[in-house]
Amino acid sequence: MMTLSPSEALARLGLTLPAPPQPAGSYRPAVREGDLVWVSGQGAMKDGAVLYPGRVDGQVSVPQAQEAARLATLQGLSAVGALVGSLDRVRQVLRVGVYVASEPTFTRQHEVANGATELLIALFGERGRPSRVSMGVPSLPLNLPVEVELLVAVE
Amino acid sequence: MMTLSPSEALARLGLTLPAPPQPAGSYRPAVREGDLVWVSGQGAMKDGAVLYPGRVDGQVSVPQAQEAARLATLQGLSAVGALVGSLDRVRQVLRVGVYVASEPTFTRQHEVANGATELLIALFGERGRPSRVSMGVPSLPLNLPVEVELLVAVE
Amino acid sequence: MMTLSPSEALARLGLTLPAPPQPAGSYRPAVREGDLVWVSGQGAMKDGAVLYPGRVDGQVSVPQAQEAARLATLQGLSAVGALVGSLDRVRQVLRVGVYVASEPTFTRQHEVANGATELLIALFGERGRPSRVSMGVPSLPLNLPVEVELLVAVE
Repeated sequence: MMTLSPSEALARLGLTLPAPPQPAGSYRPAVREGDLVWVSGQGAMKDGAVLYPGRVDGQVSVPQAQEAARLATLQGLSAVGALVGSLDRVRQVLRVGVYVASEPTFTRQHEVANGATELLIALFGERGRPSRVSMGVPSLPLNLPVEVELLVAVE
Repeated sequence: MMTLSPSEALARLGLTLPAPPQPAGSYRPAVREGDLVWVSGQGAMKDGAVLYPGRVDGQVSVPQAQEAARLATLQGLSAVGALVGSLDRVRQVLRVGVYVASEPTFTRQHEVANGATELLIALFGERGRPSRVSMGVPSLPLNLPVEVELLVAVE
Repeated sequence: MMTLSPSEALARLGLTLPAPPQPAGSYRPAVREGDLVWVSGQGAMKDGAVLYPGRVDGQVSVPQAQEAARLATLQGLSAVGALVGSLDRVRQVLRVGVYVASEPTFTRQHEVANGATELLIALFGERGRPSRVSMGVPSLPLNLPVEVELLVAVE
């Protein structure tokens, strides 16, 4: 039974939303149009530094990349909450893009992406199960290992 | 004259929709919000294995990659049909993303992408002519050569 | 005070919209659905040739890539104007994707992306400040250094 609100599920998991992300340039963390909210690409930061810089699975392991994907997703949700008032107003996660800085031979980006989408399902139940695209990239801003982009519907 | 329905055009081309794709993780093949349907990134599979694994145009040729893009597009359309009942309910293809696993010197991703969008136009006429983005990537999940993402409007 | 219309701001900056882009394949420059306009990935062309071909920051410098991002953005806006009649009908820029052909060690894609989004803010004020995703890619169609994708809301 999915009877917890997303906020309650977050607490039950022992998680707290990080502070809303500060853009690293001339853009917004999130933009709303009608019922849709586009969230800027997020990378996991800890104490002002990139968590696990480098490429998967060279300098960065798959479990580390999954953790980075999870934290980046939390940051994106924090941006949504800051824009619409509460995570509990998310009606459906529509699309998740997971861009993985990858060694040329690494082909398990979908496993890294599960770090993002399993958290969303844990928080929102089936309303958190999105469409998804994941791919390798040679490098990301600030040497991030993973960038996560969200599109959600709110009420 | 575009008098065939998409289903009829599919049959006329001697094509059949593959079975709806099974997600390789914690996500959905497609998600609907209002009149819009986001389809997860699709890669061409045949008999349970990746069709033409590797990078273009190293291990994989441009014609092979175009065929993979075409089949991935059919899989994406199958996901749309499973969600909304019939391909004939597609009103407009809005956006197609084509992500091509590329050797560093390969710069003809747009030709690979034509494999996806020419099929859409053959099936839907001008309603199948989308906006498009194509790019090289170093690697894709499961060593796919091409990943195709669709966004469509339905009625 | 932001009292200039986008058209006026464009003139004040000494800029003119380039001719609407011609698709390099079977797609449209831009597609509208309701109030949303998806613009195809744009790369900076000059006199029919790619401006600054190659990867950043090898053959192409960061300032050159920023200029390419700016020009690609203008081309995308030209596609919007051609579709909806005038730039002045843009209500909000929702999402900008900036895909940067990158040497494997290059991790300043966000600085390249500022070339796109600073122009949007100069033209549209806060209505031009979007959500954004930027990433490295190994290669782009036609050996472009940067590809810019826009999603805007119009009235």
